[in-house]
Amino acid sequence: MPLPELASPRPGPQPGHVYLVGAGPGDPELLTLRGARLVAGADAVVYDNLVSPLILDLAPAAAGRIYVGKKAADHTLPQDEINALLIRLAREGRRVVRLKGGDPFIFGRGGEEMEALIAAGITVEVVPGVTAAAGIAAYAGIPLTHREHAQSVVFTTGFLKDGALDLDWPMLARPNQTLVIYMGVSRLAEICARLVEHGLAPGTPACVIERGTTARQRAAVGTLADLAARVAEAGIRPPALTVVGGVVGLYPRLAWFHPAGEDDPGSAPHAGCTAVHRDGGGEGGADD
Amino acid sequence: MPLPELASPRPGPQPGHVYLVGAGPGDPELLTLRGARLVAGADAVVYDNLVSPLILDLAPAAAGRIYVGKKAADHTLPQDEINALLIRLAREGRRVVRLKGGDPFIFGRGGEEMEALIAAGITVEVVPGVTAAAGIAAYAGIPLTHREHAQSVVFTTGFLKDGALDLDWPMLARPNQTLVIYMGVSRLAEICARLVEHGLAPGTPACVIERGTTARQRAAVGTLADLAARVAEAGIRPPALTVVGGVVGLYPRLAWFHPAGEDDPGSAPHAGCTAVHRDGGGEGGADD
Repeated sequence: MPLPELASPRPGPQPGHVYLVGAGPGDPELLTLRGARLVAGADAVVYDNLVSPLILDLAPAAAGRIYVGKKAADHTLPQDEINALLIRLAREGRRVVRLKGGDPFIFGRGGEEMEALIAAGITVEVVPGVTAAAGIAAYAGIPLTHREHAQSVVFTTGFLKDGALDLDWPMLARPNQTLVIYMGVSRLAEICARLVEHGLAPGTPACVIERGTTARQRAAVGTLADLAARVAEAGIRPPALTVVGGVVGLYPRLAWFHPAGEDDPGSAPHAGCTAVHRDGGGEGGADD
Repeated sequence: MPLPELASPRPGPQPGHVYLVGAGPGDPELLTLRGARLVAGADAVVYDNLVSPLILDLAPAAAGRIYVGKKAADHTLPQDEINALLIRLAREGRRVVRLKGGDPFIFGRGGEEMEALIAAGITVEVVPGVTAAAGIAAYAGIPLTHREHAQSVVFTTGFLKDGALDLDWPMLARPNQTLVIYMGVSRLAEICARLVEHGLAPGTPACVIERGTTARQRAAVGTLADLAARVAEAGIRPPALTVVGGVVGLYPRLAWFHPAGEDDPGSAPHAGCTAVHRDGGGEGGADD
């Protein structure tokens, strides 16, 4: 089946421009048509950790593939060097695709990269992606909003200031909303304790999903009172996403995705659906 | 270019199943590869308002296309009848694709449809989509999170209870976060006033984006103090998305998308980039 042309003649990637493209949460099939088209016409692809190798394979064989990925405290390339690299590649007249996990404008520093590029006179197109929260919740069968449980959803990230978690706890600890925390697993016990301190019931349903939407998706499900213990018990590790709120209570009924648990994080999650639902209904997770 | 097979052999749409697919915020090129593949193999497509006709065109000619769209107060088909329709089509052995604007699990009642289907014994796969907030912000050049302006982002919707807006105002009116309101344009003056009442500065940057990511994208930009007047002046109407917070201040520098302003909402936004940046830098919007 051909990649459908859903637009009237629309420019492919142009020399000297940077395309800030969201690669989605992990499953390569969640890339957008626009994103696939741009990667397929790129001269240079600059990519992060967690971008599927199957997406990189879409680029022409001759295109440069440059890894600048970040892992928690291990920034492979500092942000200002990434900015400088993108500017240099564009000035050399390349069609540059900057691939970021999830959506470029949600916890991706896409805004900072765009500011630097525009300040340098480089034009930028932004291609949104399925953000980790939406993608991983969908594969976990957790509706982020629901008329009976949550009329708002908050995405936040664990932000350390002088070693302490510097979050707006009164805002996060509200009933009738869903809270999604990107990159918070290493401080999970503290996060759960603070949410209870600020008013959420200890019995509020909560889960952590590792490598969501991929074949290695796994989850630990519990409540604010016992989630940290369950995560430790299951050995869940980053990249992972935490979801807190009444909607997590729907998970046992709505979970539909049963990854085969293959070793290749870029492999097809649906391949060989042998229904290995680890730890009683596991789902996986990813950071943007 | 062929629709790339990013997965190892992965089942296409199966008879008797329902696929809950996010169609994205408006631009049909923001559909995912998985979504495109499922629509292309569907026997029946059940779709909402705001789903691009170009996406429907991907379905086989013989497939049924059933419109069940909702507009604000004009529910074409009540939710329980939509649920019953999906169950009937699946029981007839069809490959049913339920296309929803944006992401199915963010203000889409996807969770309710899934609950009804599972209760009826129908299996469901969920394909996340680019949610309106992420897609529209990307095309508007507004990073939803940014280290200097917002470390959290909240999505909410205007919820009426006995004619009054029943929102958690203290949670929404916090500094250093981005607030995105789906479907709130008709109550904009009240929303802005309440946010100021609950502590946000009247000078907080804010904008409303109509038909975002499409060729008819337009925006009004201002502050909480004057946004309602600017929106009225510009004649901005639903479907539209409201964004409030420091990140909106980046818009004048980062706006990159200049729709041609064509009449067809499903047409390519990049077609004929004649840089009609209406009302000083307009962008468009859509509801999930």
